[in-house]
Amino acid sequence: MKTVAISGVGLIGGSFALALRKAGFSGRILGVGSERTRAEAVKLGVIDAGCSLEEAASTADLIFLSQPIFRVLEEIDLLGAAARAGCLVTDAGSTKGLIAKRGAASFKGAQFLGGHPMAGKEARGVSSADADLFRGRNWVLTPAKLADLETESAQWLMAQIRAFGSRLVILDAEEHDKLAAMTSHLVQLISTSLAATLAGVPEAKRTAGPAVIEMTRVAMSPFGMWHEIFATNPENVRQAIDAFIRNLEEARALLDSGDLEHIFDKANQAARLLRSPNVIDFQK
Amino acid sequence: MKTVAISGVGLIGGSFALALRKAGFSGRILGVGSERTRAEAVKLGVIDAGCSLEEAASTADLIFLSQPIFRVLEEIDLLGAAARAGCLVTDAGSTKGLIAKRGAASFKGAQFLGGHPMAGKEARGVSSADADLFRGRNWVLTPAKLADLETESAQWLMAQIRAFGSRLVILDAEEHDKLAAMTSHLVQLISTSLAATLAGVPEAKRTAGPAVIEMTRVAMSPFGMWHEIFATNPENVRQAIDAFIRNLEEARALLDSGDLEHIFDKANQAARLLRSPNVIDFQK
Repeated sequence: MKTVAISGVGLIGGSFALALRKAGFSGRILGVGSERTRAEAVKLGVIDAGCSLEEAASTADLIFLSQPIFRVLEEIDLLGAAARAGCLVTDAGSTKGLIAKRGAASFKGAQFLGGHPMAGKEARGVSSADADLFRGRNWVLTPAKLADLETESAQWLMAQIRAFGSRLVILDAEEHDKLAAMTSHLVQLISTSLAATLAGVPEAKRTAGPAVIEMTRVAMSPFGMWHEIFATNPENVRQAIDAFIRNLEEARALLDSGDLEHIFDKANQAARLLRSPNVIDFQK
Repeated sequence: MKTVAISGVGLIGGSFALALRKAGFSGRILGVGSERTRAEAVKLGVIDAGCSLEEAASTADLIFLSQPIFRVLEEIDLLGAAARAGCLVTDAGSTKGLIAKRGAASFKGAQFLGGHPMAGKEARGVSSADADLFRGRNWVLTPAKLADLETESAQWLMAQIRAFGSRLVILDAEEHDKLAAMTSHLVQLISTSLAATLAGVPEAKRTAGPAVIEMTRVAMSPFGMWHEIFATNPENVRQAIDAFIRNLEEARALLDSGDLEHIFDKANQAARLLRSPNVIDFQK
């Protein structure tokens, strides 16, 4: 593995570059993106040089797509035709079903293997990139078939993911989207809807405590990214919302009875399971 | 102010004692509670001595009730009759309507002034008590009439609250319960219902990221305390749930349209307002 190209050298792409270096990668790291972003990434020492997607397609051994989902889909079409044989293309898109389908349809000589590092922070851009961003986080790969994991490039990518301190998770793309609807997309909509509800309560901050502050943090996420996630996973998200509302309505019905205890117990157990040791410690 | 008695020397009561000392109070601090708790609190240097509620009623200048709500209601009845003239009784109960009514009905010679310090942490008990627990948090007082704030004891209590680094908030008890239903009780039920929904998704932890970990933290709260909160504020909580579900259903209906943006914008603004500087900084 001599040359890695990263399309979209922002928080995720930049952190991928820094994490590779920290894991010992000594080859060339190229960055694809706007003139300004490329220049900033070179100046910060995150990448060695900027290049076009076409140049990346003809020279890189691994291409990492860390653009928004719609742009990843476009680049998959371009790279499916242009990437040289032996090149592995992976991505960081937050939904995987459509990306996996497009990868399977577009790629011939090169290999496509979808991925989703489940990491991020509020600060964006390459200046926030962090070699340890992926440490302790799930990194999902969604092979179209299990044999996709056998290639030398795929094995190398998986070794890097483990070297980053991430928990490697192998999932079917559709299964990823069902699970992510529950654990991520629903969670965003809950935070957004809670904050939107409080928008109608001007005095809310007079009784705000730590819990509501914590529960409205992701409500400050920008809509742009989320629009593309919802647009590419709407059915699973609707089902997740419905399941959640059924649970909340059950709690509402039992509100002033002692019977609410079994819901608290179930919730308590599930919250602890999410934190159980084989998920590594998510809390920094 | 020579003698302060604290009924329920756990996390909140113990922290009140330590915060008073840190603020310079040099009088006597007595603790009411079980033999074991009193002994532990004395051993840890949190209180000077243990006593019975009757002894507190006949000797203390200020009595702070930091028991669960139902027990606070019982002690209000006892102290309304027994507390000596000039004594101020306040509390830390998480709902205020019923407590305020009971205080108004029970107290004759002594003064009752309900309160709610909006602080806490996951660890419980006097061994977790912390002189800075209330720093940067809202501390609500709910006077039955504004003149209740004019007494020397009330003025002294308010000065201590400000010395603790808390934000003093004066609210009508009913208004407190309406607001707390939105900013606290609803928030708990959302976290509980989210975790209960994930209980049906055994593979959830394979795609869990930081947001779902954060949003299910308070789902690990014990039911005991919450049962008493819901039982003493059910109507406001039901209204808060209904308002929240309306917002979530609106988001669901707009899911794959660009129109969701206005909800994100509204939510973003409300989340930022909750964090605005005049609320002090809630993030540690």
